[in-house]
Amino acid sequence: MPPQPSQLILLIFNSDFSNSCLFSILQQNKGPGVACDFELHVNSLVGCRQSVQFQSSEFNMPSEKSEKAMSPKITGELLRQLRQAMKNCKYFSEPIQAYIIPSGDAHQSEYIAPCDCRREFISGFDGSAGTAIVTEQHAAMWTDGRYFLQANQQMDNNWTLMKMGLKETPSQEDWLISVLPENSKVGVDPWIIAADQWKNMFKALSSAGHSLVAVQDNLIDAVWPDRPERPSTQLRSLGLDFTGISWQDKITTLRAKMSERKITWFVATALDEIAWLFNLRGADIEYNPVFFAYTIVGMSTIRFFVDLKRLSDPAMREHLQLDSPSKPELSIQTFPYESVYTELQAICAALGPKDKVWICDKASCALTQVIPKTHRSPIPYTPLCLGKAVKNATEIQGMKMAHIKDAVALCELFAWLEKEIPNGNVTEISAADKAEELRSQQKDFVGLSFPTISSVGPHGAIIHYRPLPETNRTLTVNEVYLIDSGAQYVDGTTDVTRTVHFGTPSAFEKECFTYVLRGHIAVSAAIFPNGTKGHLLDSFARAALWESGLDYLHGTGHGVGCFLNVHEGPCGISYKTFADEPLEAGMIVSDEPGYYEDGSFGIRLENVVLVVPAKPKYNYRNRGSLTFEPLTLVPIQMKMMNTELLTQKERDWVNEYHRKCREVVGAELERQGRQEALEWLIRETQLII
Amino acid sequence: MPPQPSQLILLIFNSDFSNSCLFSILQQNKGPGVACDFELHVNSLVGCRQSVQFQSSEFNMPSEKSEKAMSPKITGELLRQLRQAMKNCKYFSEPIQAYIIPSGDAHQSEYIAPCDCRREFISGFDGSAGTAIVTEQHAAMWTDGRYFLQANQQMDNNWTLMKMGLKETPSQEDWLISVLPENSKVGVDPWIIAADQWKNMFKALSSAGHSLVAVQDNLIDAVWPDRPERPSTQLRSLGLDFTGISWQDKITTLRAKMSERKITWFVATALDEIAWLFNLRGADIEYNPVFFAYTIVGMSTIRFFVDLKRLSDPAMREHLQLDSPSKPELSIQTFPYESVYTELQAICAALGPKDKVWICDKASCALTQVIPKTHRSPIPYTPLCLGKAVKNATEIQGMKMAHIKDAVALCELFAWLEKEIPNGNVTEISAADKAEELRSQQKDFVGLSFPTISSVGPHGAIIHYRPLPETNRTLTVNEVYLIDSGAQYVDGTTDVTRTVHFGTPSAFEKECFTYVLRGHIAVSAAIFPNGTKGHLLDSFARAALWESGLDYLHGTGHGVGCFLNVHEGPCGISYKTFADEPLEAGMIVSDEPGYYEDGSFGIRLENVVLVVPAKPKYNYRNRGSLTFEPLTLVPIQMKMMNTELLTQKERDWVNEYHRKCREVVGAELERQGRQEALEWLIRETQLII
Repeated sequence: MPPQPSQLILLIFNSDFSNSCLFSILQQNKGPGVACDFELHVNSLVGCRQSVQFQSSEFNMPSEKSEKAMSPKITGELLRQLRQAMKNCKYFSEPIQAYIIPSGDAHQSEYIAPCDCRREFISGFDGSAGTAIVTEQHAAMWTDGRYFLQANQQMDNNWTLMKMGLKETPSQEDWLISVLPENSKVGVDPWIIAADQWKNMFKALSSAGHSLVAVQDNLIDAVWPDRPERPSTQLRSLGLDFTGISWQDKITTLRAKMSERKITWFVATALDEIAWLFNLRGADIEYNPVFFAYTIVGMSTIRFFVDLKRLSDPAMREHLQLDSPSKPELSIQTFPYESVYTELQAICAALGPKDKVWICDKASCALTQVIPKTHRSPIPYTPLCLGKAVKNATEIQGMKMAHIKDAVALCELFAWLEKEIPNGNVTEISAADKAEELRSQQKDFVGLSFPTISSVGPHGAIIHYRPLPETNRTLTVNEVYLIDSGAQYVDGTTDVTRTVHFGTPSAFEKECFTYVLRGHIAVSAAIFPNGTKGHLLDSFARAALWESGLDYLHGTGHGVGCFLNVHEGPCGISYKTFADEPLEAGMIVSDEPGYYEDGSFGIRLENVVLVVPAKPKYNYRNRGSLTFEPLTLVPIQMKMMNTELLTQKERDWVNEYHRKCREVVGAELERQGRQEALEWLIRETQLII
Repeated sequence: MPPQPSQLILLIFNSDFSNSCLFSILQQNKGPGVACDFELHVNSLVGCRQSVQFQSSEFNMPSEKSEKAMSPKITGELLRQLRQAMKNCKYFSEPIQAYIIPSGDAHQSEYIAPCDCRREFISGFDGSAGTAIVTEQHAAMWTDGRYFLQANQQMDNNWTLMKMGLKETPSQEDWLISVLPENSKVGVDPWIIAADQWKNMFKALSSAGHSLVAVQDNLIDAVWPDRPERPSTQLRSLGLDFTGISWQDKITTLRAKMSERKITWFVATALDEIAWLFNLRGADIEYNPVFFAYTIVGMSTIRFFVDLKRLSDPAMREHLQLDSPSKPELSIQTFPYESVYTELQAICAALGPKDKVWICDKASCALTQVIPKTHRSPIPYTPLCLGKAVKNATEIQGMKMAHIKDAVALCELFAWLEKEIPNGNVTEISAADKAEELRSQQKDFVGLSFPTISSVGPHGAIIHYRPLPETNRTLTVNEVYLIDSGAQYVDGTTDVTRTVHFGTPSAFEKECFTYVLRGHIAVSAAIFPNGTKGHLLDSFARAALWESGLDYLHGTGHGVGCFLNVHEGPCGISYKTFADEPLEAGMIVSDEPGYYEDGSFGIRLENVVLVVPAKPKYNYRNRGSLTFEPLTLVPIQMKMMNTELLTQKERDWVNEYHRKCREVVGAELERQGRQEALEWLIRETQLII
């Protein structure tokens, strides 16, 4: 799946929406500190095109939601209740004049659970990005170009859409200052606003004579009678055969890092970090095997905040050594999920003058502010995030196994598609379903790692396209088919994209595919010094496209978790100059350049690759070198290649890659007795010359 | 010259210093926000080597200074006087307990004039980077690894050397806090500290109960009786035939940008920006054709602050239309250089509530703080900086002419070297002198654009090596020779590096040279989308080296001025992810990868290149493409190439480059009747196959 899920997609619709042919006319990654880029692109595009409309193709939008997307939610009564709550002194000492409702949960997760969809509840707008602000008189929604049309359709007249990225659209701060009476109070739930966002808003409002107030009780929850429960799915413990390192050893390593930096406490808030630390998995958020929890680690204590019911299972208690800890400092004290705040308060009240507390600067304002500023030591990436990114030998072995199983399923899928497509009854949705069915037959399959992007012809140019009943297209021998999919297995997470043609691709399609392939190889085969940051490799993926005046507007790769989130930090390969951490052996990232011809086709070629040591001729300053080893082992369709455009080195790379696919995946296909897929694999891994 | 002059160079000396063989064991660019990098490198090196000593090879250190470098300056009496001044209420209401003496001038120039070498005066230490702090009891000097040895040699026992980059070395803030009595006042000259540096120091001291005080009168000047005068060299006005745009039109363009961003005033403090704006040049700072001045531009007024004596010449008055302005809003009001402060105060006193003042965030604290915070609009790059970076047709033509003349001089130099070296009487210094002599014969020669780096054998591995009498080495047929040099001509600035061998290079030298050449070509021939930032091209220069486990630890390119500073912003090509501006047609940068084999040889290959539109096959999203056109036209020594390591495309590039050198420079050599150099050129531009 392409890196950075927050994508700006501007789409043009034909007049007949039900047969809409969607053109992605602009796709732009959003990352920290790139608001400016974003704005420029939108402005220049909006300025030069007429009749531009907008629609979302966000992948975390379940289809049921989309089906209701066309009729706005009636919000008059809800807003009346919310405004009532804003005046209600049960929640604060004085009434507030405005209330901010951000997207997101208390863990700043990329995907969120239904109970955290508060902005959607109050407004009807269910896009993945958006911030609502309700004042006594107004209700306004800020969202980006992906969602202008959708938000307009889903929200009723009570709401004003604030089109982010357009010059005339005020910022939330400026708008608040323009509409609020003097000395107003603006409330926000401090749990769902990150510490740095709070800081900016606080400054802007203060300088205009207003104040920003942390409202501990969420006011949306107060007017949301049938709000879903916070999920509390069954926890799964992972043994050493899957994790390679016990949670006890992870704690010890963490404490060593704390002590090295003279840190006395560490507060973990990111769900995947907590899951990784304790070698536990959950299913609280779709596609992400995580569970709601917090952890506070001191030099001799471990506090674990989670729905305590989840810990009643004897095996779970045994895993966490709740009843008989091996050492006192490895004894886990368990607390209800909700008590993290008071417990952190108690810890902070007892801090010595030199005590320092680590917390990620992306953590919630609520928890961050519990820690007195002089004791707070904010970090961009926690030691857990860094530890999790560098996979150990067991995790690498698991990831390899998961990718072999995944390749088996995909070989079967492609063999099946080849056979079925001429019958005219395979659609984007049924192909995606078939892929899931085939994956689910593999050992230790848990679920998908993200919604399958199954796209035919022009849909392929919509980078995060997800087929919906109203857009579903039939696969034919006349159009390019792009499938970007992945799964969670207990031993690893996969994410692979292949672009194929079941008939005869055009010369232009082949040309573009070959440039993308050259870019993919340039990254995958690159040798680079230890300590190189991923963003320095991004241009390698583009050089062949650039040479012909082509490009793609998304990053080239993202970190991939091991039976964890398919997108994870702190490494990646992107032209955005974000603060990525240097690549090191054991890290796993995706390599996925693409090319998107609006209205015609999309090409993307994605392997998950492992960072491994390289041994070139020299070793400058003893730094050592690195390169990548593909974990994904699915043939790259030769029919799509114009081999004349490949250098001998590139042809060698393709042949060697296919040799490995045939050897490794072939053996597994044989073991599983999947003869048809094996024949397909052998045919698709012939030598190219 | 390599980008980013602030280089960290750690050198190992043999016991016999006069015949010292210098090994650059670490070179590291320093740029905004890279302190961390820097620290890591030093730590790891210092940790793993014994007997490491340090010496500077900084290029703005005149040799006379270096000759005195070995005996420390006696500073006891000076420090007594300074401490007296720190208590002297003539300068402030209450005594200060510490005084900070940064490097630099009031314009944050890269090179400074003798009158601004205050830190050198008080301490004796004359390296290009260093900050002194004097308290009642202590005198301490912070400098980086390039200068540890030199600073120790140049400073007497009154001074403590603070080795930046070593773990145990406290920051200036931490050290101050540790040594100061409670509630201390720390003084600094607000003119020579940049606004952001002030802010950091201010915060740190405040949080420890101290205060940072701006001392308007410089206390070093107060104890420096024979301080040199501020230079006030004759100004030179440039006509439209050199500048392409009148200063009046530049003012109009600036005002249009101000009005677009609703800015009412603009304060220019960078010397090259002011020189560019008014089409004037000076010679106040060696190698940089600039002059001391400030400018404040309003929507209808222009204030020019400069030594008024410089404006007495009638031609100068005519150039600036001082006596008969064409339009009232283009009338320049002249003020003494020193009155910028009071004049800016007066302007700020009369600001309307919505008035905004642009000032570069790198400007001095003194001027920045005159502007009330609510009216201040700090920018990383001023419109003058951006305007200056994009050369117009006349400037491009001038730069081309300057590079042809420069190539003539270098062809002559190399022909002469070939002839003379076997006689054994050419040294690094005499070769550099010969290069200067040959350049000075060319039309409109003004001077060098930086001190020539003329280095033989192991000296070549010292990136900013400058030959000194005590290190001077003879050129032979046995060692690689690297010469990095450039000149100021009235029509343009040059900067070129060639690495040559006058005998038979070793296979390894040729191999490394060829990788560097491949990197140079990869950047020079790259095609990339309009709007690409230079740092995205940096890895292209390294890929061939990386493939063999090699690298170089400096950036790949810097912006080059047009008869202005040889280093200029805001564009460049570097792996540092600094906020460079996107490349656009008309910008001029250097392309200079290298390889440095410590103790043996250095290789660098530098052309100045012009950003030009490219016309590849396709034009994705109508963005347009760019590439580079070499302005430098000096043959690249074929003897140093292992052509077997070059692809056909790369060989074609070399042949085409040499064809152009022969055609363009050959014609000029012929015109100038320089037959021997012409023969050399023809021989050195044969086809390679």
